[in-house]
Parts: sequence; structure tokens; C-alpha cells
Amino acid sequence: MFTAFTPISSDGGSSTFQNNVPDPVTSGVELPTFKFELEKSAGRVMGASYGKEATVEQLPISKAIAGVSMRLAPGVMRELHWHATAAEWGFVTAGLVRTTVMDPAGKAETNEFGPGDLWYFPRGHGHAIETLGDQACHFILVFDNGYFSEFGTFSISDWIRLVDNTTLAKNFGVPASTFQSFPKQEVYFAKGKIPPAVAPAPLQGWKTPPLTHKYRLLSQDPFEVFSGGREWRVDGSQFPISTTMTGVVLEMEPGALRTLHWHPNAAEWQYVLGGQFEVTLFGSKARFRKETIGQGDVAYIPQGFGHSIENTGQQTGRILIVFNTGHYQTIDLTQWIAGQSPDVLATNFGVDAAIFDKFPKSDVFMAK
Amino acid sequence: MFTAFTPISSDGGSSTFQNNVPDPVTSGVELPTFKFELEKSAGRVMGASYGKEATVEQLPISKAIAGVSMRLAPGVMRELHWHATAAEWGFVTAGLVRTTVMDPAGKAETNEFGPGDLWYFPRGHGHAIETLGDQACHFILVFDNGYFSEFGTFSISDWIRLVDNTTLAKNFGVPASTFQSFPKQEVYFAKGKIPPAVAPAPLQGWKTPPLTHKYRLLSQDPFEVFSGGREWRVDGSQFPISTTMTGVVLEMEPGALRTLHWHPNAAEWQYVLGGQFEVTLFGSKARFRKETIGQGDVAYIPQGFGHSIENTGQQTGRILIVFNTGHYQTIDLTQWIAGQSPDVLATNFGVDAAIFDKFPKSDVFMAK
Amino acid sequence: MFTAFTPISSDGGSSTFQNNVPDPVTSGVELPTFKFELEKSAGRVMGASYGKEATVEQLPISKAIAGVSMRLAPGVMRELHWHATAAEWGFVTAGLVRTTVMDPAGKAETNEFGPGDLWYFPRGHGHAIETLGDQACHFILVFDNGYFSEFGTFSISDWIRLVDNTTLAKNFGVPASTFQSFPKQEVYFAKGKIPPAVAPAPLQGWKTPPLTHKYRLLSQDPFEVFSGGREWRVDGSQFPISTTMTGVVLEMEPGALRTLHWHPNAAEWQYVLGGQFEVTLFGSKARFRKETIGQGDVAYIPQGFGHSIENTGQQTGRILIVFNTGHYQTIDLTQWIAGQSPDVLATNFGVDAAIFDKFPKSDVFMAK
Repeated sequence: MFTAFTPISSDGGSSTFQNNVPDPVTSGVELPTFKFELEKSAGRVMGASYGKEATVEQLPISKAIAGVSMRLAPGVMRELHWHATAAEWGFVTAGLVRTTVMDPAGKAETNEFGPGDLWYFPRGHGHAIETLGDQACHFILVFDNGYFSEFGTFSISDWIRLVDNTTLAKNFGVPASTFQSFPKQEVYFAKGKIPPAVAPAPLQGWKTPPLTHKYRLLSQDPFEVFSGGREWRVDGSQFPISTTMTGVVLEMEPGALRTLHWHPNAAEWQYVLGGQFEVTLFGSKARFRKETIGQGDVAYIPQGFGHSIENTGQQTGRILIVFNTGHYQTIDLTQWIAGQSPDVLATNFGVDAAIFDKFPKSDVFMAK
Repeated sequence: MFTAFTPISSDGGSSTFQNNVPDPVTSGVELPTFKFELEKSAGRVMGASYGKEATVEQLPISKAIAGVSMRLAPGVMRELHWHATAAEWGFVTAGLVRTTVMDPAGKAETNEFGPGDLWYFPRGHGHAIETLGDQACHFILVFDNGYFSEFGTFSISDWIRLVDNTTLAKNFGVPASTFQSFPKQEVYFAKGKIPPAVAPAPLQGWKTPPLTHKYRLLSQDPFEVFSGGREWRVDGSQFPISTTMTGVVLEMEPGALRTLHWHPNAAEWQYVLGGQFEVTLFGSKARFRKETIGQGDVAYIPQGFGHSIENTGQQTGRILIVFNTGHYQTIDLTQWIAGQSPDVLATNFGVDAAIFDKFPKSDVFMAK
Repeated sequence: MFTAFTPISSDGGSSTFQNNVPDPVTSGVELPTFKFELEKSAGRVMGASYGKEATVEQLPISKAIAGVSMRLAPGVMRELHWHATAAEWGFVTAGLVRTTVMDPAGKAETNEFGPGDLWYFPRGHGHAIETLGDQACHFILVFDNGYFSEFGTFSISDWIRLVDNTTLAKNFGVPASTFQSFPKQEVYFAKGKIPPAVAPAPLQGWKTPPLTHKYRLLSQDPFEVFSGGREWRVDGSQFPISTTMTGVVLEMEPGALRTLHWHPNAAEWQYVLGGQFEVTLFGSKARFRKETIGQGDVAYIPQGFGHSIENTGQQTGRILIVFNTGHYQTIDLTQWIAGQSPDVLATNFGVDAAIFDKFPKSDVFMAK
């Protein structure tokens, strides 16, 4: 085995080198927009199926994380493909989904997912995603690279159609004529029969990997319950294969505030599952910006930037939050202040120390 | 032992990716200057307090490491802040200093430092620095990113003043009027009372982290004593939280030479504590440059470049040296040659093998 | 605590950050050439010795790996030097070679190599390479950085000649006159006596490192034998010092095909030892390119790109393949398809599921 020499850096690994050199997008006098209306974008449509993406092209600030909203009609499959430049984290919002994924050891896993379940596919591992049953499914994909899409996604049909049939015949040990009826264009969304309810065995039989690619997030008890809401969370400590990503579902009542905080080791990608939220972003040097995001909108917080999220709608809302780290970390302003003595705070703010008697004595993750 | 924070990648970890692509600054026919007169620069001044910085803006070659010289008058505090883009290593040269730092687990440490003591704050961890007692203090800060400053430092007062009082009230559970007297501009240097001699407890009480942020470098016996000088050294093996930096104080008598050497896994940042030194830099392809540096001057050596340091002054001098690795490594030319047989050396230099009988048979770190 | 799972980055470490941002060279409508006729290039010649290189200058696609073909006449030595920007992996094709290498702990190893043996020198470690005996030697060097050469190679004679003799005298504790007869120009290729058959002890005596730098690849049984050929392979699991590189020798009979596959965690550098091969490259988005490579030619496959290799010559041929990872990984199209159930394949390709009854039920690494 060969795990000994891979680095454990103090900031959790995957995002170590992401923001060393200033990004022109976030280096101006004003902060740029950090919101994109993903579900309102056109995307790639085939009948009742679609894929809509938020990459650096649509949302230039989102250098470290990209996302996709995908709907697949019954009988439709996002064909076998891999991403050369990113791992994929997927969260099901509606319907039933079946995935297959293969690792470099030749182990393949087939999994089924309902709403609130999620998957993680390491960078470069081949996979497919298909609707199960007679209802459409919808899921959100998140990638640990804002540039993942352009020239980073490799489809099996796009490859096979470019290889001559003689080579394919030799490759697979079958007659060249086998490939005459194969697609002449990239398939992308494949339309076929509704898959069997029980997954049939692969050609090679069941050879499953040591770590599962599936985690049932919303079937767990909440990670924490607050006055004002609940949080489900999963990083590599609960879901070991997810070495580069962490996922959170935050449920917030009207008026609830995910308090001011920052993540020292990761960028953050948000997708509104339901409700309306105001997100604030603090970017140092007097730079501050607010965005209001509603269902289907995306927001992005660069690594280390201060921010907050408030439910400004009339109903309880949910927001999906994904980080590009397998090791979740946050520093909340309430706890940072609680970690100071009154004299430090008095000097810092030029006010009387007694003012801080009324401040929280411990972390306030959510306030209402 | 040294496996906990692993950089057992062959080049030490943190700096792995820093110099893969040639840097235009060091790719010309001549080497650029690698010296900056830090203490003679203007910096940011408030009364008797100041901060002066050496980043890629002042010293373009210093891509991997930046530094700051800071003096704080009595009662002055460098306010609560964090760095989104760098870890901070600090070395006290005069006076007494108290720091507070908070980690993502909500643990806060308060430490006190005198001359020769140092700290390490991981990237993104919130901290403050204040003078203790009625004398000014002075310290040198070193960051593992030459771009750390620009848009990378986040101050608490700059954030809080940008958030409306209603949100702050909800965030902290206090009346909105609480914030009426808070600063309307970024504080940066806060002036208050001289802090209590014994650190008061934080609001949350004492909840200290597993690893300390403090190391008393010059209170230890020297790491090694040479003819010509002494060396104090600390990397992650003695100071486990310091996963991305190593510090050295080199004391050299007049005429002493830190012999020709290079660091395969790190860039080097030098600050002259006292005395005068000549530093040579070898940059491959016949490129060679010397700089003379005196008290308060900074010099920078890119990763893997050959160099030497000689005390060319009249008195014993000291130089502070910081590397962007938690795992110190050097290869000295004397030892490299001692590791060769005479026939290899004779062929390499086209001279008689007997010449090398007189060469050192082991490492000469310092010569006089 | 949270350190246990961080090291298992899904892509094996060294190449994690290489292809996050799209490379303009591979982002056009067509794929660029990925072939370079290394042995036909001019290179650097001294008598019967030469060095020819393939870096991003000669082969712009090869961002992550560079290579050198070097021939040394009897009595010639590639002088003592180090690479600031890359580790070196070397494979001997003819003759006998002796190397010396020094690590930062002051341990030096001297090794001897014949055809089929190889070495690994970590980034920045000083080394020399000399011909043993009265026959020329030839070897292929591979570096884990396509930019390694330009301003990245530091020669001892180039350094010493730039330092004044007074400083050298102090550095080595010998008279300044010692250096009068030292070279006035960089030596690069040194011509001397044929080295002793038994390596003489270094000046410091034998102080050898814990991990050897030598591996006898072709003296091992093949890693695997196929219908159509054989494979020898070595990564960090067999050769622990080789933390950033993997090497393969592939022997293929006429008509044999290394089947369609990709490497999720590494770029690939190929050098034809003998024979003629057709290499195909699939770059996503309908981009496909073939190159025919013969003895002494180089080809390069970016991380995650699909490819195949076929012996299109009349004779059994051998190809040397090096990856910029210490942890070998491949996903073969045959196995990926074998990991799918027939219904998934039928939907993906829009064909009858029965077609896949004849497809391989397990991995086909090589086909004929």
C-alpha cells in the first residue's frame, strides 16, 4: 500500500494552493457578483432532460468550485463519462437515481439514491447516472474545480466513435461489424428503457470497492439542531471516500441567521433548495456585498472570506452548501469574540469592557 | 519523529508547486536584486507604532514568502484579524507581547512572548497582538506567501462596521444600539489601556488547543555551536503546529561564513537582527549576484538556489532566517564534496585527485 | 481529531494541481501534436557524448514531464549538479553507469547500473553520472516538470567559478591557490580517466541513506505477461524513494494493442526503445489524434486523456513509459465496460443488450 507520502497540510489539503496568487476577479476596488441564477439559465436540453452549469464562465468568481443542475426524464441516462480535472459530488433533490462508478483497481459500484442521498466520485473515475422508475429525477452536481467543464469531461460514445472499427474489434475481441450500429455522435443524454428495478450484475460480476461512494445525508439525524434551524453535514470523517469535499444542508426558519463566519481552509458553493436568503460577503479592505438568492440560485464564497446567510423569506428554507475540502472547518465571529477577554475587546473597539458582558459566552452557529 | 504532518514528499510538501513554472522575475539573463531595506521603508505609521512590509510589491523575487516589521507602542494592539492566504510566523525582538489566537475547533490560546520567543498561526486562524507593559515591543512577522498582503488580511472592525446594526444585534443577541459606538473605520492599530499583567479569562473561559502556538527559541540551548558562531533552529519536529515554516537564528562572528549551500525543499527569507553580512546567490546558467545587508534589511533566496552568508562587519551579528517548510533541509557544498570519491572530483574539475586530500571530510556548516 | 483520512487524496498526490486551469495548448478546436523526435534533435554535443532534451520548448503539450536522452563516452561524466525544479528518474539502455547522489541528511549513495536498471533522485538532491568501463553508455532521464531545464539545473563548476577564491578558501579550509586550476567555464560533460572498477570510498567514508536510489527493473520477472506482450512496472510501492514517479517497460509483439485506457492521476511520457507504434489520443469534445512513433521518438499524454498504443511495426518492440505519480493507476475501457450491466450499455449505445454478451468479462490490458 502507498498512502504514506501524501501531504497533510495545516489547511486540510485540497485547497492549499488555491488562493496564493491574487485572483484578478476578487482584486478590484469592489467585490464582483457572487450570485448566478442557475435554474433560470438555458443549459443543455434534450426533451424533458437538461443540464445547466455554473462554472467560471457563468460565475467568474467561482474559481475553485463548479456546479451543475441536472434533470433526467424516465429512461434517460447521463452516459458513461469521466472528468479529467475534478472530483464529482452529487446530491439528489427529486426522484430515484442509479449510478455506476469504476475505480482504477477495477472495482465497480452500483448505487441507488433518493432525495437527500449523495455520492462522491474521485477525479477521473468513470461513471454513469440514470433515472430509476417512471418519474424524472433531479440532482445537483458539484465539482472541486471551477474550470471543470471546458475540455474536462470525456464521454464514452465520443471516444468510441472516433476510434476505427478495426481497432475497436481488436480492443474488445469482437467482430468489427459490432460497432456499425454504435452512435456516430456523442450521446451525452442516452434514452433507453426504464432500468430494471433490481440492478443486474455487471458483465464482470459484482466486484465492489472497499469504500462506498454513497452517503444518505438527510436520512441521518441532523448534525446539530439550533434555535432557528437544523444542519446536516458530511465530510471525510463520516464518508471516507470524500477526501476533497464536504456537504451541508442548512434548514433555516424565516428570520434565522447563519451567523458571521469564515472557512480558513475552503471555498464554499451554495445552491438554494427552497426559500429566499440574503448572503453577505466581506472581502477585506472595506469591500462588502450582499446578494439575495432564491430557489435554484447559486452563490460562491472564496476561501477565507467572511460571510453570513439569513432567511429573508416567509417560509422555512433549505440551502445546499458544498466545500472543496474533506475536512470541514469554520470560525464563527461569535466564538472568536467569546475567545477574547473583555480588555482585548475594549481596546479593539474603543468601547467599555462591560459592553461585552452581554455577548455570547460560546459559539452561536445560528441565531434568530 | 517527523511523520505527523507529512511532507515526506521528496521536496518537503508546502513548497512543492511553487517553482514548477519559471518565474519571469528570475528567468532573465541577470539575477534581479534579492535585497530590500525593510526598516528604511515608510510603512504604515500610527504615532509610535508602525508596520512595514516586504511583499512581492517591494521585493518582486520574494514570491513564496513575505515579511513585516512591526512596532507597537505601549497600550497598542494590532487588532483582531486573519489572513486568508497565508500562515503567520512571528519572532519578538524587543519588549513583551501578548497574543490571542482561535482555531476552527473553538479553542483559543493566549500567550506571552519576550525577545527570542516566536509564534505560529495557521492560515486563516483569527488572532490579535498587543504590547504588554509600559515599553514598546517589536517583532518580525513572516508569511508563507509572497502575495499575502494585498486583499489577504481581514480585520474585525472593518467587517463589523460594514454589517448593519440589526444584523449584528441578531448575530450577537444584544440590542442594536450596542454597536452605535463601534468604530466607523478599520482600526488596524487599536490604542487602549495597558493590558493587565495577568491575562484575564476569555468570555468563554479557558478552552485551550491541543498544540501550543508558542516556542521559546532563544531560551533553548543552541541547536549547534560552530567555530565562528551558533545556530538556533526550530521546525515542525520541535514545534508541531508549525507545519509550513521553519525558523533559524544564526549568530556569526566577524569573518564567519555560513558556507555555500542550498535548500532543496524551501525558499528562504532573511532579516538582519544586527551586524552586516554579504549574501551571495547562484542562480544557474552563470548567474551570480551579491548583496550587502545590514540591520533591518531583508534578503530572499528562491527554492533550490545556491547561496552563502558572510559576516563582513566588525562585530558579531545575528540574522533571522525563515523557510516555507515545516521540514528543514539543507545540502552544504562541503558535505556534497565530502560525499564524493577523489576520482569523481578529479574528473569533474580536471585537476589532480590528490588536491582533495585537504578538503573537509565532513560537513562544514560554518567556517571562519 | 481529524487527520486520519486526509492523506488519501484521490489522485495520488503529486499531480493533484497540474491540470485544474485549462492549458491553452490543449484547449483549441484540434489537439496539438504530442510527438517529438528526440533522437533526431541536435542537443548538446561534446565529442561522442551528447544530451538531447524534450521540454515544453520542444513539445509544448508536455507541461508535466520532460525528458532527456544522454550518451556518455568512456571516461566522461555528467558533472555534479542538481535540479531545483524537478526530481529525476533515469533508465539505462546501454553500457554501464555509476552515479553518486547526496541527500539533505548528508548521506551519499554510489550505485552502478546496467541496461534495464533505473534510478530516482528527489528534487534538489546533488548527483553525478559517469560512464563505467571502456564502452559508451546511454540512458533516458525523465523529470516530473515539463519546464525543468530552463534555469532549473545547477552545475557545481558553474557555481564554484563564480565565487572568488578567498571565499572558497574559507569555505573549504584550503589555500586560495587551490582553485587557480579549477575550470573557468561550466564543465557540464567532464572528461577524465575511466573510473576504477570498484567505487572508491567518498572523502567522508561510506554513509549510506536508508532508502536506495536504484531499482533493477528488467532483472525482475515481468509484472504481467499477456497474449501479445509483457509489462515491467515499478512505482513507489516497490521502490519507496520514487514518491513522484512510476516507470513501465512495455514489450509488444507486432499487431499487439495496449488497449484504450486513461490514467486518472498522472500524465504519461513515452520513449520508444525499439519498434514502431501508433499512439491515439482522445481529448474530449470530438478531439482525436494519432501519431506514429519509432525508435528514439517521444510522445506525451496529458493527465486523464484517453489513449492507446499499437505495435504497427514488423517486429517486437519496446516502449519506455513514465508517469508523474508514485502511485500507478489506470482505467481500461475493457474493464470499465465489464463493470457495467448489459442494460446500461444498451441504453448508452442505443443497441441491443445481447451485443455485450460477447464483450470481455474482465480487464484486457493488451490485445492481439
